[in-house]
Amino acid sequence: MTDTNEQSSTRPASRRDVLIGAGGVTLGAAAAWGVGALRAAGLQPAADAPFPGTSGAPQSVGHKTGAGAGAFGDAVVDCHGVNQAGIATSPQGFLVLTAFDLAASTDLARMRRLMRLWTEDIERLTTGAATITDTEPELAHLPASLTVTVGFGPTLFDKLGIADKRPSWLAQLPAYPIDQLRDEFTGGDLVVQVCSDDPITATHAARVLAKEAKFFATPRWTQQGSRNAPGVTAPGATMRNHFGQLDGTRNPDPAEEPNLIFRKDSERWLDGGSSMVVRRIHMDLDRWDEIDVPARDIVLGRTQATGAPLTGEKEFDEPDLEARGELGFPIIDVAAHIRRARTDDGSQRILRRPYNYVEIPDAGQISNVGLVFIAFQADLQHQYLPLQAQLAELDLLNQWTTPIGSAVFAIPRGFAPGEVLGEDLFGRE
Amino acid sequence: MTDTNEQSSTRPASRRDVLIGAGGVTLGAAAAWGVGALRAAGLQPAADAPFPGTSGAPQSVGHKTGAGAGAFGDAVVDCHGVNQAGIATSPQGFLVLTAFDLAASTDLARMRRLMRLWTEDIERLTTGAATITDTEPELAHLPASLTVTVGFGPTLFDKLGIADKRPSWLAQLPAYPIDQLRDEFTGGDLVVQVCSDDPITATHAARVLAKEAKFFATPRWTQQGSRNAPGVTAPGATMRNHFGQLDGTRNPDPAEEPNLIFRKDSERWLDGGSSMVVRRIHMDLDRWDEIDVPARDIVLGRTQATGAPLTGEKEFDEPDLEARGELGFPIIDVAAHIRRARTDDGSQRILRRPYNYVEIPDAGQISNVGLVFIAFQADLQHQYLPLQAQLAELDLLNQWTTPIGSAVFAIPRGFAPGEVLGEDLFGRE
Ligand code: HEM
Ligand code: HEM
Repeated sequence: MTDTNEQSSTRPASRRDVLIGAGGVTLGAAAAWGVGALRAAGLQPAADAPFPGTSGAPQSVGHKTGAGAGAFGDAVVDCHGVNQAGIATSPQGFLVLTAFDLAASTDLARMRRLMRLWTEDIERLTTGAATITDTEPELAHLPASLTVTVGFGPTLFDKLGIADKRPSWLAQLPAYPIDQLRDEFTGGDLVVQVCSDDPITATHAARVLAKEAKFFATPRWTQQGSRNAPGVTAPGATMRNHFGQLDGTRNPDPAEEPNLIFRKDSERWLDGGSSMVVRRIHMDLDRWDEIDVPARDIVLGRTQATGAPLTGEKEFDEPDLEARGELGFPIIDVAAHIRRARTDDGSQRILRRPYNYVEIPDAGQISNVGLVFIAFQADLQHQYLPLQAQLAELDLLNQWTTPIGSAVFAIPRGFAPGEVLGEDLFGRE
Repeated sequence: MTDTNEQSSTRPASRRDVLIGAGGVTLGAAAAWGVGALRAAGLQPAADAPFPGTSGAPQSVGHKTGAGAGAFGDAVVDCHGVNQAGIATSPQGFLVLTAFDLAASTDLARMRRLMRLWTEDIERLTTGAATITDTEPELAHLPASLTVTVGFGPTLFDKLGIADKRPSWLAQLPAYPIDQLRDEFTGGDLVVQVCSDDPITATHAARVLAKEAKFFATPRWTQQGSRNAPGVTAPGATMRNHFGQLDGTRNPDPAEEPNLIFRKDSERWLDGGSSMVVRRIHMDLDRWDEIDVPARDIVLGRTQATGAPLTGEKEFDEPDLEARGELGFPIIDVAAHIRRARTDDGSQRILRRPYNYVEIPDAGQISNVGLVFIAFQADLQHQYLPLQAQLAELDLLNQWTTPIGSAVFAIPRGFAPGEVLGEDLFGRE
């Protein structure tokens, strides 16, 4: 294949050898010291906590040995596995999400090269090792549970001349009447989701991956988000969004119901993969604050303070959608968000992994905030589309929320040491 | 005084009584459990760490009792004292900085009212208690070392008809040839610096204060920033900026040299106060990455990896500005940032408390990053202006950095329980 004047052509053939040779990372049992000490303090790195709202088993997590960092900084999530990391991983504090468009010159051969480079970068960055060309290698040394998740957009397949390989379900969402989509937050050939418990680690890793892609793809949009910083809430606690709501209470447990999230697929590249929906949703906090708490609770169907359904007492009580009040009206409103966001079919649940965003307010606004809403599900059509259609049709919350960006990606299966991301789809160098 | 239809007129007279009555916060000795457990894990809340680069005594810090939160979430920094909190406080992870312009109708009487409201808000928010009108009170429950620091801009005094009270030194910085200031990040009658170890706590507290000010002042600009998340680096470690540099190595220790930071002043309101300079400085990371590490180290005068001066081995080694290399040239370049950022007069040092910012990149950019540079010093004219003039005249770093915002504020002294911020200047309701 053509090997032009890319920075990458000067790399040693096997960066992975360097990484593995360098050691410095231990997983599993040897990780006990850091985690044990944190547990004694009632703390856990994101990656070692159960997914919020679940009692699921924590991810495989380790610690870099030796470094003089704080225990959240050292924490390592294994990037290898049947599924990509960053999906079932208990959400870390910080998100940098970048969508890319392929350069006109990127053909299948160049795509293979990009995937090889990114795979090696991911193996290094997630273990706290800088890439060889990194000009700020020091910003790579504290992975803080860093994960990188790569996905492919619907437009990628035509551009690479492999339209026949595009999964039939992989397409942008239909246009909904609630949408006010902006080009600058919509679509994309490729996506890279970077999550870490440290903001500068996430920013830096996303930058390294974007620079690596320089000759192959250009950033189309970037979205940043945050949840709570590590150690601020109890491990596995549900985060609150800008409306003050506990957001993430009723999520499937990836450890218990992996089939809701990861695909069984006859295509090898998607077997263990997933589908990812990104919606950028502006939340009109200035107007939301004009309504009182009882009204808000009707909108959601849950109590803001505790997250309990209006028919229950505690956050994890099952909502009773049939219950009626004295006047015969349903206690959880017919248009309440939590009623509209579910169906009777338990196989139609999705895994939400959202982040809060805050941008500089425009003149006259006090706040410019919202949600980088991210959902993973094995089957986009069966699980996501019906919920989204129901919500777009009727949801009290829509009066205060506006989708301003939208994108869909196919998430390839995870990779083992020695494998390259997407190699069953694109082939291998 | 006129008490118009403001939301505030419906408040109970003494919100502070409610707060103190409610208890729930312990300071000092009783704080041992949380801090002790954290220390055992090698962790400290920001507010309990020495100022980075110093061995100074930590701030007064406590923990809310009872809450089921992570230990960083519970941490409380006392808002009362001779100096306002958020200056000598070891920098927390997250910053929301808002400048306000007074409404045309805000006279001295209304200013007094705003200061009373803000004082009470600060007393509540920093102890994890929501304000009475807060519509998302749940977002106030984890202070995570929250501090709020209030300052007054040069234009405030004329607008309030107290021009004679404006300190002679309080003025915007002179225009420098390096500046490319944008109106939307420059100036302001008032400033509120909110810092916390949790991003949503900081965002929410800043919002509560902006809403409280609604009838008195409107936001002119907002800047967000972050340092490392809590527990990611070792306590008291120096942060790295987007260029990969250790930033904050040579800072005065507020505990040892308070006179560099806080004023002795014949005006009571400024006695224990300070001056604050805010510079929003864009860092051209895309171009910075084109130069190699040896060149970068010449620009700064320190080694990027370790932060050591080019004449030393370790981060805290004293730079030897006289040392010359074999060819007789100074080892630390005549135009290196650290040479130009100091004078021979030890009384001309400043306290830097900067935060990294990241914005959505413009088309064609990979990164849009910089520093919310914040400096506190007792004497603006004697300490800050000479350094800034030197740097504007000659500093290799200027080729990659551009000031795009600028503001100066007088920071009034701190307040004791029962006092109101700025009461010696504006009088009291
Ligand atoms: C800014 C927009 C949104 C906000 C603020 C929001 C907020 C919430 C909150 C507070 C809950 C209740 C607690 C929980 O179970 O997590 C919830 C539940 C849920 N939301 Fe949303 N949501 C938004 C958009 C969406 C979208 C676009 C979808 C999918 C298309 C969605 C799907 C769901 C689902 C599936 C549940 C769980 C329902 C159940 O099984 O009880 N939400 N949302
Ligand atoms: C984006 C702009 C800037 C960057 C990236 C930057 C970065 C740095 C770095 C890495 C150091 C060395 C480590 C340390 O002692 O902290 C340093 C030192 C210093 N900087 Fe800056 N700086 C910037 C702007 C400024 C400005 C505007 C001022 C003041 C007007 C300033 C004043 C200082 C001072 C006083 C020192 C310590 C010098 C010494 O005593 O050795 N810096 N800066």
